[in-house]
Amino acid sequence: MVLQAIKYSRGQLEILDQLKLPHTEEYDHIYSSTDAWHAIKEMRTRGAPAIAIVAALALGVELVNMKLSTVAEEVKIFILEKLDYLVTSRPTAVNLADAARKLKSTVEEAAAKEGADGAAVREAYVEAAQKMLIDDVSDNENIGKHGAEWIVKNTEAGKKGQVSMLTHCNTGSLATAGYGTALGVIRSLHSTGALKHAFCSETRPYNQGSRLTAFELVHDQIPATLITDSMAAALLQLKGSSENIAGIVVGADRVAANGDTANKIGTYSLAILAKHHGVKFLVAAPRTTIDLETKSGNDIVIEERPGKEVTLVKGPRHDGVTLDLGVVETVSIAANGIEVWNPAFDVTPAELIDGIITEVGVVEKDSNGVFHLDQLFTPSSVKDEPSTIGAI
Amino acid sequence: MVLQAIKYSRGQLEILDQLKLPHTEEYDHIYSSTDAWHAIKEMRTRGAPAIAIVAALALGVELVNMKLSTVAEEVKIFILEKLDYLVTSRPTAVNLADAARKLKSTVEEAAAKEGADGAAVREAYVEAAQKMLIDDVSDNENIGKHGAEWIVKNTEAGKKGQVSMLTHCNTGSLATAGYGTALGVIRSLHSTGALKHAFCSETRPYNQGSRLTAFELVHDQIPATLITDSMAAALLQLKGSSENIAGIVVGADRVAANGDTANKIGTYSLAILAKHHGVKFLVAAPRTTIDLETKSGNDIVIEERPGKEVTLVKGPRHDGVTLDLGVVETVSIAANGIEVWNPAFDVTPAELIDGIITEVGVVEKDSNGVFHLDQLFTPSSVKDEPSTIGAI
Repeated sequence: MVLQAIKYSRGQLEILDQLKLPHTEEYDHIYSSTDAWHAIKEMRTRGAPAIAIVAALALGVELVNMKLSTVAEEVKIFILEKLDYLVTSRPTAVNLADAARKLKSTVEEAAAKEGADGAAVREAYVEAAQKMLIDDVSDNENIGKHGAEWIVKNTEAGKKGQVSMLTHCNTGSLATAGYGTALGVIRSLHSTGALKHAFCSETRPYNQGSRLTAFELVHDQIPATLITDSMAAALLQLKGSSENIAGIVVGADRVAANGDTANKIGTYSLAILAKHHGVKFLVAAPRTTIDLETKSGNDIVIEERPGKEVTLVKGPRHDGVTLDLGVVETVSIAANGIEVWNPAFDVTPAELIDGIITEVGVVEKDSNGVFHLDQLFTPSSVKDEPSTIGAI
Repeated sequence: MVLQAIKYSRGQLEILDQLKLPHTEEYDHIYSSTDAWHAIKEMRTRGAPAIAIVAALALGVELVNMKLSTVAEEVKIFILEKLDYLVTSRPTAVNLADAARKLKSTVEEAAAKEGADGAAVREAYVEAAQKMLIDDVSDNENIGKHGAEWIVKNTEAGKKGQVSMLTHCNTGSLATAGYGTALGVIRSLHSTGALKHAFCSETRPYNQGSRLTAFELVHDQIPATLITDSMAAALLQLKGSSENIAGIVVGADRVAANGDTANKIGTYSLAILAKHHGVKFLVAAPRTTIDLETKSGNDIVIEERPGKEVTLVKGPRHDGVTLDLGVVETVSIAANGIEVWNPAFDVTPAELIDGIITEVGVVEKDSNGVFHLDQLFTPSSVKDEPSTIGAI
């Protein structure tokens, strides 16, 4: 069973409490927008697409189970007020604000229809919220499918047999509405029998790799091995051949128009190592991550975060023999007084990227080494769903 | 004041308790070979050269302060027995066994001299033990001097002004008899006013960089910044120019005859990143680390260590505001059940190394890209102490 961070059916919503991961797998029932507001605020659910979808679905669940007014206008106002309230749980989350705006216009349209009653407005809302979940998961599944096909067809390793891949950070079910982007590609390789082994880097300083990706890989019973970020080069050197490593696949925070990609710190390093060892370096991201307004990586400002994220580490206490899940401690792993540089992400130049995997296909560079990402947004590219766009 | 892990004067020895680092700086008095045996066994002192020297000096201190027999033969037997005992504190330590063997032959020679008495045997021993300390520190100081001169003269950054350097793992006063190898090069740059800034990588999984190197840099008031291993590429990309980064300098566990270098895991990755960014990659090591019997890196077997070194992290408890130095906790930072690959070191091919810094000079490759390390062991190279050997 593929890990689900969001479990939904009409009138019912449960979310995996990510604060308790990776050591405890516990689902919380979400009955209302108030429940969702608290879950988002307390970080029990995380990841930009996931937050928006949990908020949207929670209000849908509330509407299905409550005693509803029969008056369309009253239901509309109730929904609009609840959406405004939900946005305040994470005011900086662009996806959440976007989702609320779209849902609002759906509801306003529905309420304006002739003869609309309260139930009709509710149904329009619930359907739109459900569609967000379905679309995000299906986009990720398509990313996985296109990426896996591309790797099997276009890498030396893929031509030989089952391939191994390295991934960085967490881009799986825990960061999206489901299935994942880069981890979705690995899931797809595994489900089609094309995966030999997955490697995940621990992803310092916040260890999303060792905590979340490793958890997903263990959960889905995908053969997998954890390494520190510093071991990636040695892995490619020593195991590249025996493990038939095809390349490295990562997610993206933002892809610029020229293909330069901002992603979790350490990504740029992995891209250089992939090039040095002659294996592929792939970015997996939905088209919503591609920002044609950002011309290149030079236009991306890199956030620097507090040094204590590097010098302090948190986790359940281990007494030498067993884990004590009841006691979470923070320990210091650095000398006092040392200055720390802690950039949250880095920018990998398009030059080092072999392909950008989206829900409508994989984009490669043309013979001049240029990505044409605008192709992804033309109607023809969407219709055909080609597995390779740029190389055509 | 440069950090001293070993404080010695005739009849007196103190060692910095490395188990309490980096948070508590506490020296233990060592009065006897028994004290040294326990300090080595309990890992209060560490690093192959340091262990051998602490053992040798501890017996010297004991001999100076004890009521000594006047009979040469009796003193000789006492020393030989104590040396055998000291070797049992760490039977696998090659340097310790080597040092004991050399000291034994010194003592046997002294006792065999005509008219030798107990005091003469003691003096021969004490002098030889002291010489070990002096030689190791002076070798390291020479490594520092040659390395710093080479960097200033032979790098683009050096020609521009004060340079910054990145180092990995701990190769400082805490790993040697004093001053350090790669960190000695940084100390030397600093003491001559040629250093702009030092960067140290945390060096997962055991964090020797964030714990020990950061401690030494803070102690010596060298301007320094800690990064995670995954940030090295971003550092070179974003700060290479503004910080005038000349290159990366690391130590070595073993250098093969062709220059291939085994060192702490993560070193190979840094060498690739240095090449990609066009900065120098330097290995600093005393000639005793160069093993002409090992033809190349292919002959070096890489030790794989337990996975829990990656998944568990130890340190003093932090309550959110302050460190509680009295409570050391171990916490888990990875999902249960994930497999781990934990190679202790990696091998950097000579191709990626620009220079090998030794106590007699810096060796560069010839115009065919070949290191001639055997030159380091010819008498002429030792006399001249050239700062560049291979390039001549």
